[in-house]
Amino acid sequence: MKKQLFGLALLSLAMAAFVHPRADAQAPADRAVFTADGKLQRPDNYREWIYLTSGLGMTYGPTQPTSGQPRFFDNVFVTRDAYRGFMQTGKWPEGTMLVLEIRRSAQNASIDNGGQTQAARVTIEVEVKDSARFPDTGWGFFDFSGTPDLATTAARLPLTASCYACHKNNTAVENTFVQFYPTLMEVAQRLGTVKPTYDPSHKVSQ
Amino acid sequence: MKKQLFGLALLSLAMAAFVHPRADAQAPADRAVFTADGKLQRPDNYREWIYLTSGLGMTYGPTQPTSGQPRFFDNVFVTRDAYRGFMQTGKWPEGTMLVLEIRRSAQNASIDNGGQTQAARVTIEVEVKDSARFPDTGWGFFDFSGTPDLATTAARLPLTASCYACHKNNTAVENTFVQFYPTLMEVAQRLGTVKPTYDPSHKVSQ
Repeated sequence: MKKQLFGLALLSLAMAAFVHPRADAQAPADRAVFTADGKLQRPDNYREWIYLTSGLGMTYGPTQPTSGQPRFFDNVFVTRDAYRGFMQTGKWPEGTMLVLEIRRSAQNASIDNGGQTQAARVTIEVEVKDSARFPDTGWGFFDFSGTPDLATTAARLPLTASCYACHKNNTAVENTFVQFYPTLMEVAQRLGTVKPTYDPSHKVSQ
Repeated sequence: MKKQLFGLALLSLAMAAFVHPRADAQAPADRAVFTADGKLQRPDNYREWIYLTSGLGMTYGPTQPTSGQPRFFDNVFVTRDAYRGFMQTGKWPEGTMLVLEIRRSAQNASIDNGGQTQAARVTIEVEVKDSARFPDTGWGFFDFSGTPDLATTAARLPLTASCYACHKNNTAVENTFVQFYPTLMEVAQRLGTVKPTYDPSHKVSQ
């Protein structure tokens, strides 16, 4: 019996290794890589993906300052294949991965007078579309916050995390804030993929 | 004599076509393309290059608002080959092309409360490193501003344009404001390519 169980365990391990690429394997440049226990590997090359937009001091989402504290920049990047898919269809293909990078802002840095420029990174948060892996909503959110370095892997945030409801209820296209990505919003409007329920004047109740 | 001149003109045209790719030729994805008369073609795919940084309301450079007017976002992109070269050496390879994209900012758009987000594009300005084409300074600046659409080609700005002196005197690495590109400044500091004359506290006299 012990031997049988051991054999079953070995088989499971082998299957897990087949289904989920190993965490220490060479990470592909442009897709989500999960560990055997379902954690997302930190995508370190996201600065080489496609840039979508930046905001300063936006008040939705995590890591926002309270009144009187410094304001953060947020930069959004998406995998190149996902970008190409969206530009053609106005929808996100399976495997789409978006990174929200939070950075400190600097005031009057170098020769700038009165503006804000980008400084040290605070954290990254990641959103992955994978209907097979996340059959409940089709999307997973991951927070790589850590001190002093970011975490190397992150478990999917539970469905009770605020990002799920906020993205579901307030995004212009699928589960993403395309209303803040000017070049993509044009595509979605042309291709008719903006949600019929999207209301640009809608605010989240405080 | 007329015939000789005509022949010479034809020969010149043929040589020009050889040296300078035709304006209407298929534009390579990742390098500067010049017309036969030396104008730069507008690089329409720059949003697929590498993103370097954003600022909001910065007061150096053109298309800045005066007091009380809306503040603009500026986004900087660089060609992928140039980025790879910089990450390896801390210097810009020949052919490097950077785009400064100016966008309007929106306040309280969609669910955002109190922050600024990116809106319609205002213009793009381009900087190209080409020591053979620009033997005077090694760099050329190009402004594609136009109404209602951006210009499709732009002549090199004359050396009297303010960008030449400002970039020469105030940039951290070569002719570029790497002090505003956090991920690149780290590389330049590590590889020792920050100009010895660069002073982060230096301001341009008003």
